[in-house]
Amino acid sequence: MTLLAALDYASVVIFALTGALVASRAQLDLVGFVFIASLTAVGGGTIRDVLLDRNPVFWVGQPLFIGLAAGAAIVVFFTAHLLESRYRSLLWLDACALAVAVPAGVAVAVALGHPAAIVLIMGVITGCLGGLMRDVVCNEVPLVLKQGELYVTCAFAGSGAAVLVLWLGGAPGVALLACAGVTFALRAGSLALGWRLPVYKSFPPRQ
Amino acid sequence: MTLLAALDYASVVIFALTGALVASRAQLDLVGFVFIASLTAVGGGTIRDVLLDRNPVFWVGQPLFIGLAAGAAIVVFFTAHLLESRYRSLLWLDACALAVAVPAGVAVAVALGHPAAIVLIMGVITGCLGGLMRDVVCNEVPLVLKQGELYVTCAFAGSGAAVLVLWLGGAPGVALLACAGVTFALRAGSLALGWRLPVYKSFPPRQ
Amino acid sequence: MTLLAALDYASVVIFALTGALVASRAQLDLVGFVFIASLTAVGGGTIRDVLLDRNPVFWVGQPLFIGLAAGAAIVVFFTAHLLESRYRSLLWLDACALAVAVPAGVAVAVALGHPAAIVLIMGVITGCLGGLMRDVVCNEVPLVLKQGELYVTCAFAGSGAAVLVLWLGGAPGVALLACAGVTFALRAGSLALGWRLPVYKSFPPRQ
Repeated sequence: MTLLAALDYASVVIFALTGALVASRAQLDLVGFVFIASLTAVGGGTIRDVLLDRNPVFWVGQPLFIGLAAGAAIVVFFTAHLLESRYRSLLWLDACALAVAVPAGVAVAVALGHPAAIVLIMGVITGCLGGLMRDVVCNEVPLVLKQGELYVTCAFAGSGAAVLVLWLGGAPGVALLACAGVTFALRAGSLALGWRLPVYKSFPPRQ
Repeated sequence: MTLLAALDYASVVIFALTGALVASRAQLDLVGFVFIASLTAVGGGTIRDVLLDRNPVFWVGQPLFIGLAAGAAIVVFFTAHLLESRYRSLLWLDACALAVAVPAGVAVAVALGHPAAIVLIMGVITGCLGGLMRDVVCNEVPLVLKQGELYVTCAFAGSGAAVLVLWLGGAPGVALLACAGVTFALRAGSLALGWRLPVYKSFPPRQ
Repeated sequence: MTLLAALDYASVVIFALTGALVASRAQLDLVGFVFIASLTAVGGGTIRDVLLDRNPVFWVGQPLFIGLAAGAAIVVFFTAHLLESRYRSLLWLDACALAVAVPAGVAVAVALGHPAAIVLIMGVITGCLGGLMRDVVCNEVPLVLKQGELYVTCAFAGSGAAVLVLWLGGAPGVALLACAGVTFALRAGSLALGWRLPVYKSFPPRQ
């Protein structure tokens, strides 16, 4: 349970940083930074908790999560201009956030005793939906949909790794570590080395 | 209850096909197809279940729904290039999906004993919101908002037909059949024959 | 509780008017007006109720809310051409809606005994998310994100005023009045006098 809490806190803070970076690209004011950062930080976990009927939703029971997201947003507001490339920083922070949010989703579903399929899906939802909301609200091309990059695939493979380890009788901590590792490795490989899956192609593309 | 299950399964599979077709227009990879197809397939019913506090959400209790959506996405990934016009196929599949999802929403609200107004609204929500999420996430013009076409109107009229049949003392099965028939007939008439309602017009259009 | 009900009704009707005005900008038909108006009218309060696990969701327990939203949409459909500037009307109606929806969110969170941080957040969520959904669905630039305008800030300051009054031992009615006053005054000052916070700036803006 302590590991789960650590994952939740880490994913909230890192996703908040990505939300604040997107807010900086939209040239918002400080309150706008806090708003987008909070939405991104708790979005995926909130949907997970609502779907699993987990009461209270994690940040309603512990508002410190929102305070952390707000703090992260404030730090970014005053320091983002120091970054060499905000977009590149955004991509790598988002990769880290994904790699802690996916195991956070997996851990909750496992703790509630759900079957493997739901564990898999909750990993993907918790990992991907906060960033998706951030991008839809800020009118960025969702990272989830970027052509020629692995994104949902990483979350899916990471969740799958956790399910596999558990099925083989591994300890929950090992499963979560494998989950984070696989998720980050695939996303980093996609960002740094261009790993990808074949995409659907047709000509003309929109008929 | 068997009829309700059949409606749920049919609407999940058909909406998944539409989601996969939109994913093909966005040139996603296979996992992207599965993600968008699942979002579209279970989106409307999920919101219905959350709003009505129906626990567990239908696909959390029965993950086979997600498996079916994934299967439909995989089929589309490998066969969509065979279609003569993917957009035309999308419109007609979406019409079919609407015509089964609206009665699925109506059936749940009736089974839970809600009044006519809520039955009406749940039909519209279950029918329209999965496709709306698909279009917002994929940055398509939502079908819900397409000018000069009937869409929400079809869902609304279909739900209304079900409520009317029930109010007149008809059997639930008859009400759901009427609902599906009216929904599909109106949508098909709009697609094939250009049926429409007068729209709001003003010049200049955006002032 | 009567004050709370009055706030809920007022915010539903006024937000419905704003939703219908956006629908008029998108040149939708009458059913489209009702759909967008209802989404805008009950969106924020619905998310508040789902997050706080308040059952039933306010409009599911009292469908009259949707009827009022539909009525407001119908009135706008037939009279919007009489407005001199629909966009200006939209902005000012939205300011009024914000100023009643924020205290409505605050009141619910207080009534359920939540701590100050959650009260603050529920004020912001109830005030801002209905309009945000309206703008995302209709593909308008979300008011929440408009550069050089106060929006979330107004909701945040209004909620903060309510929390402060309550903490000082003020009566709930006074707190809600202060909340509405602060929210509206800030938003009106931003619209009429150009009040704003410094925004994040960088060159080039998107790197």
